[in-house]
Amino acid sequence: MKPLNVGLIGYGFMGRTHSNAFRKVNNFFDLEYQPVLKAICARDGEKATAFAKKWGYESVETDWRKLIARDDIDLIDIATPNNTHAEIAMAAAKAGKMILCEKPLSMNGPEGEKMVAAIKKAGVPNMVWYNYRRVPAVTLAKQLIDEGKLGRIFHYRAKFLQDWTISKDLPQGGAGLWRLDVKAAGSGVTGDLLAHCIDTAIWLNGSINTVTAMTETFIKERKHTLTGKVQKVGIDDACAFLARFNNGSLATFESTRYARGHKALYTFEINGENASIAWDLHDLHRLQYFDHRDEGRTRGWRSIHVTDPDQPYMKNWWVPGLQIGYEHTFIHQVADFLKSLESTKSAHPDFRDALETQYVCDAVLKSAKTGKWEKVPKLK
Amino acid sequence: MKPLNVGLIGYGFMGRTHSNAFRKVNNFFDLEYQPVLKAICARDGEKATAFAKKWGYESVETDWRKLIARDDIDLIDIATPNNTHAEIAMAAAKAGKMILCEKPLSMNGPEGEKMVAAIKKAGVPNMVWYNYRRVPAVTLAKQLIDEGKLGRIFHYRAKFLQDWTISKDLPQGGAGLWRLDVKAAGSGVTGDLLAHCIDTAIWLNGSINTVTAMTETFIKERKHTLTGKVQKVGIDDACAFLARFNNGSLATFESTRYARGHKALYTFEINGENASIAWDLHDLHRLQYFDHRDEGRTRGWRSIHVTDPDQPYMKNWWVPGLQIGYEHTFIHQVADFLKSLESTKSAHPDFRDALETQYVCDAVLKSAKTGKWEKVPKLK
Amino acid sequence: MKPLNVGLIGYGFMGRTHSNAFRKVNNFFDLEYQPVLKAICARDGEKATAFAKKWGYESVETDWRKLIARDDIDLIDIATPNNTHAEIAMAAAKAGKMILCEKPLSMNGPEGEKMVAAIKKAGVPNMVWYNYRRVPAVTLAKQLIDEGKLGRIFHYRAKFLQDWTISKDLPQGGAGLWRLDVKAAGSGVTGDLLAHCIDTAIWLNGSINTVTAMTETFIKERKHTLTGKVQKVGIDDACAFLARFNNGSLATFESTRYARGHKALYTFEINGENASIAWDLHDLHRLQYFDHRDEGRTRGWRSIHVTDPDQPYMKNWWVPGLQIGYEHTFIHQVADFLKSLESTKSAHPDFRDALETQYVCDAVLKSAKTGKWEKVPKLK
Amino acid sequence: MKPLNVGLIGYGFMGRTHSNAFRKVNNFFDLEYQPVLKAICARDGEKATAFAKKWGYESVETDWRKLIARDDIDLIDIATPNNTHAEIAMAAAKAGKMILCEKPLSMNGPEGEKMVAAIKKAGVPNMVWYNYRRVPAVTLAKQLIDEGKLGRIFHYRAKFLQDWTISKDLPQGGAGLWRLDVKAAGSGVTGDLLAHCIDTAIWLNGSINTVTAMTETFIKERKHTLTGKVQKVGIDDACAFLARFNNGSLATFESTRYARGHKALYTFEINGENASIAWDLHDLHRLQYFDHRDEGRTRGWRSIHVTDPDQPYMKNWWVPGLQIGYEHTFIHQVADFLKSLESTKSAHPDFRDALETQYVCDAVLKSAKTGKWEKVPKLK
Repeated sequence: MKPLNVGLIGYGFMGRTHSNAFRKVNNFFDLEYQPVLKAICARDGEKATAFAKKWGYESVETDWRKLIARDDIDLIDIATPNNTHAEIAMAAAKAGKMILCEKPLSMNGPEGEKMVAAIKKAGVPNMVWYNYRRVPAVTLAKQLIDEGKLGRIFHYRAKFLQDWTISKDLPQGGAGLWRLDVKAAGSGVTGDLLAHCIDTAIWLNGSINTVTAMTETFIKERKHTLTGKVQKVGIDDACAFLARFNNGSLATFESTRYARGHKALYTFEINGENASIAWDLHDLHRLQYFDHRDEGRTRGWRSIHVTDPDQPYMKNWWVPGLQIGYEHTFIHQVADFLKSLESTKSAHPDFRDALETQYVCDAVLKSAKTGKWEKVPKLK
Repeated sequence: MKPLNVGLIGYGFMGRTHSNAFRKVNNFFDLEYQPVLKAICARDGEKATAFAKKWGYESVETDWRKLIARDDIDLIDIATPNNTHAEIAMAAAKAGKMILCEKPLSMNGPEGEKMVAAIKKAGVPNMVWYNYRRVPAVTLAKQLIDEGKLGRIFHYRAKFLQDWTISKDLPQGGAGLWRLDVKAAGSGVTGDLLAHCIDTAIWLNGSINTVTAMTETFIKERKHTLTGKVQKVGIDDACAFLARFNNGSLATFESTRYARGHKALYTFEINGENASIAWDLHDLHRLQYFDHRDEGRTRGWRSIHVTDPDQPYMKNWWVPGLQIGYEHTFIHQVADFLKSLESTKSAHPDFRDALETQYVCDAVLKSAKTGKWEKVPKLK
Repeated sequence: MKPLNVGLIGYGFMGRTHSNAFRKVNNFFDLEYQPVLKAICARDGEKATAFAKKWGYESVETDWRKLIARDDIDLIDIATPNNTHAEIAMAAAKAGKMILCEKPLSMNGPEGEKMVAAIKKAGVPNMVWYNYRRVPAVTLAKQLIDEGKLGRIFHYRAKFLQDWTISKDLPQGGAGLWRLDVKAAGSGVTGDLLAHCIDTAIWLNGSINTVTAMTETFIKERKHTLTGKVQKVGIDDACAFLARFNNGSLATFESTRYARGHKALYTFEINGENASIAWDLHDLHRLQYFDHRDEGRTRGWRSIHVTDPDQPYMKNWWVPGLQIGYEHTFIHQVADFLKSLESTKSAHPDFRDALETQYVCDAVLKSAKTGKWEKVPKLK
Repeated sequence: MKPLNVGLIGYGFMGRTHSNAFRKVNNFFDLEYQPVLKAICARDGEKATAFAKKWGYESVETDWRKLIARDDIDLIDIATPNNTHAEIAMAAAKAGKMILCEKPLSMNGPEGEKMVAAIKKAGVPNMVWYNYRRVPAVTLAKQLIDEGKLGRIFHYRAKFLQDWTISKDLPQGGAGLWRLDVKAAGSGVTGDLLAHCIDTAIWLNGSINTVTAMTETFIKERKHTLTGKVQKVGIDDACAFLARFNNGSLATFESTRYARGHKALYTFEINGENASIAWDLHDLHRLQYFDHRDEGRTRGWRSIHVTDPDQPYMKNWWVPGLQIGYEHTFIHQVADFLKSLESTKSAHPDFRDALETQYVCDAVLKSAKTGKWEKVPKLK
């Protein structure tokens, strides 16, 4: 196996999911490349060192520019807040490193365009961590759609519901809470959660043409962890939008962190002329499938327990009936990325794919201000 | 339409379900016969009169012998406690009346044999109210099994779980509580609940050959409503048994009134070589169906919402998606009974069918005492 | 009991649900009034006669004006296509009859305003058949909300998904299919299905302030049953809209007849600061309830099987665990209407309540054309 | 961290789950000890070498006696067929190694007694891989029961249903199929699947007193992979038994590999006076909980999504709503075992605990032959 030296930037929640993926992938997938945990980089050297010890990183950096400058690093993995992606990614591209970047790609479309241009110029392999494409049930949905099992598509609907920011006492900003700080996050649920929904939707159902949206910030002010002051909340706590896809289907999208009772309920459903598909993240190992071609009396929604070897990724795991979980989506993504290095086919979603999602997010946030239908720019 | 004069005995819970069925059946089913609510009979004349007014019975009797003696009564419907079924039914048969009898048929097999003999001698139409056969989802299960969709049967399992007698303060005996009094009921959950499970099981899967059982009475003494004294509880609070069917399949049966959280959870599942079926009374309008012949990747349990016109009984009701409930099983049973009067085909389960269930109950109760496997007598 | 003479206009699907309710209500509810099925009215005398026979109507009329003119009729029940409601209702009001009117109230707001004015002038009891308020689980939701169990409301979402018009070969217009004919129906899913969602939403969560909507007609032309010609389809096959309630909560609404796999999937969910509620029509006897105040480790969505005597309407039916169905919502509505006649409190939703729903429908349809947020007029 | 040198015997399905656990445990749990993958041992050296490479074992052995003799091995992990456990375990104990042994402990009770004696004499830490105790939802069930939330227990029921041996063409014996060969496995579903059910049941509900059982072998003869001949099948394809616990509760247990539609459906339910609990392996991240003390109208089964930091083991993983899977149960077991080495408290289930399960299995298999209730021997 060929070593692939990884330099990770960021040791938060995503730093953990990525590290776990790098460490496990070769135990379960037959690949030519093997990620080597070469360096972890974070401003807080002490915490970075503790993380390195826990996960087996060989070295620690506190300046990402130094990490990028190192010759022994093949791949830069960006797991930092959104407002840092562009600068790091463009520097890494310039240095000729492969890049894995957390989602959303950028703070907005124009910033993303620069990143795509940098990547294109550098010609380096790149991928964005929209991990939910690699839930086996979701990948199975993609297969069924691509095989034409659904026929003409009429409807798409997606939601991502959480309830963790309902308390007025929750501060914004700082470690673990930068997602509530508009300067670090760029937006609220739109970039954090709807971006996932949009990425999956485009993948499954093609490009989105127009949108009309509303957003709301339920808690208007929160104490800021870094400044210690009560400050205006700049993010969207909730966002819903209607959309029309290029294929003529209609869509509703909604996300909020104020849906009591839902921790991370990402759901989607797609209704076609002949069949429909539904999925939800709280039971991610199941796909719901309705096929109108089944005999009338016994037609019903099938609850498919996606754990069989003929279902996506599952032959690499255990035996039928034994479910995998959230973390495995990252392992699948690393496996597919490493596999892509064995050929000339690139892995997806790449930066360019992620830019399209950014365009939709921008149009959504714009519509929420204008109160009008907004057109989504086309990818060049 | 030809009138069919009904004389109902008993105004309790079952008196209501039957009356509702008689009143509604012709609004929904095209039939030659129309039940006429001629008379309600009960010892308590005042309550019987109130019941008659509420349901539109034309007259009231307080002595069932007088009711049976009336020339204007075509059909005797027995909705009284179990210990009275035999005497009433045999008298009604002798008088040449059609008979509908609440389940269980009798206090035990030998008593049931006399009833069957009386019916046979009289040659009168007869039926026992094992209503769950006529849940559309259950009838659909029967169709699928009869069509051979399941192939060789390996397993049958049924449960009937309730939780309404857990309180030590609940008395036994008297109105509404005679089911706790062994003298009136004959047994506890075995005759009340398992009898339903057994009737369905025999209908779907054929005769039961041998059983081994255990019973338990968790609350040993309860105040008796009629005597006012604390008396030994003679019924089984819970009963479970293993069984072997004649077709070689294995079964587990269980019933209790001490399963906290379950109000009337009658469930069954049947596993065949090619397909499996499951159903439960708490969502009675659904049938769960798994067909191994479905394509591998999209194989799953289908949740069939049994409300389409091509599903049993449903073309007589509303439109797809709109569910019916518990009471409709009785209406279906009356409809099938009335239909049977238009031809020479008798309606089922008749007294003889119900006797087989009685035999199984007897064997179960015997095994609970002997601790051995007991053979179920064959119907002659 | 006092007789209340009913004259029903229309023998279709709704004619059946209403007749069933009139016939059954006194068997299950203790009321001073008893509906008497005095007359059925329909243009097709032969079919009306057959219906009268099946349901026990005493007489038949073929001209609704004659029916309204009859002295022996106390109440006019309108179960005809939408475009006839206003004329009949206003004539009935003028004649001093009580009126029950199928939903939606009218073809549009202005027409509804005239109806409300007529009713007000006549001072007659009136009600509109938005039956889903009387599903016991939905009524329980209302109780919990009114008791403040949810706290501040953040989100409301509702859908009504069907799949029965996907086939291109289905004609429009005529018996059973007038809902596809814009002249008879006024609109498609908006008036037929979203109207239900809106009525429930206003009842549970208060008035809707603004909306933005999109509609689509997937099949542009269909043969018309009455003309025999292929004609443009004027109704909306699908409609989705975003909304803001007066209480500050956000909402998404969607309806379609092109959601393969869903027959009549009306669902709603409401998220409050302390608790959330969800319900769906395909399992109408259950309410989903999440209470954040439950102890952390055992917090979860409760699946409430609404069949207990302390739950709305259920003490009038069977015993715990035994579910009722769709038709019972109409019986409950009649029971509440009859009960209202015993006092000075009027039953709801009345014509005025239904007008508010009409206003929302109008704003939705307007927004679908303008592409802008539209304000919902306030009730005077 | 102190290294703990592991020598694994067997590279099959269980060899993989254990290796994964050893590799991951320190990434997620703070522990003093760190397993080091020192050696993998298997008769087939080539396959063992491939396995070592995939999982990072430092060395390979082909004779387990040599492995046990090595000074650099602290812990022997037995992941071989059942008929080899005793010999290996006793040798390892004699050599003073810590021992982790796959379940079931032994071929039968008497063999297990020798193993327990050897362990006791050697005084070495030991544990048996009944992994399902460490599903967070199951551990939560244990907490709730131990806190007395259920009150007096009335019922326990467990099932383990599979469908992978229905085909007549499946051979018995050899790699991957030794579970069908009675010489290697000792029994069929009883030792393989019911043993899991029994271990959990004893842990949650105390000792089992008496049992009555039935077994069946549906396919009587299968080709043997090793001999190439069609031979009699000696295992039980299905087994069901009734039981009485020492605490007075009643139980039903059932397992089969002929339940079409179920891949690994291990379920249990326990009904107490005040509350009930249910769980199933196909959605292992959920616990169903019903608490009768909830207010009447809103009482219902709670579907608890066990992913919160205050729920067992979950603070070590991701964030609320993101589920873990099957493999994590093994990681939890290793974590608890390593933790036990830091103190004088031993980890469970140990060999002695597993012997009690063996006694129940023996009684079950005996009863299936005698047709009588059999008493379960008490642990000394």
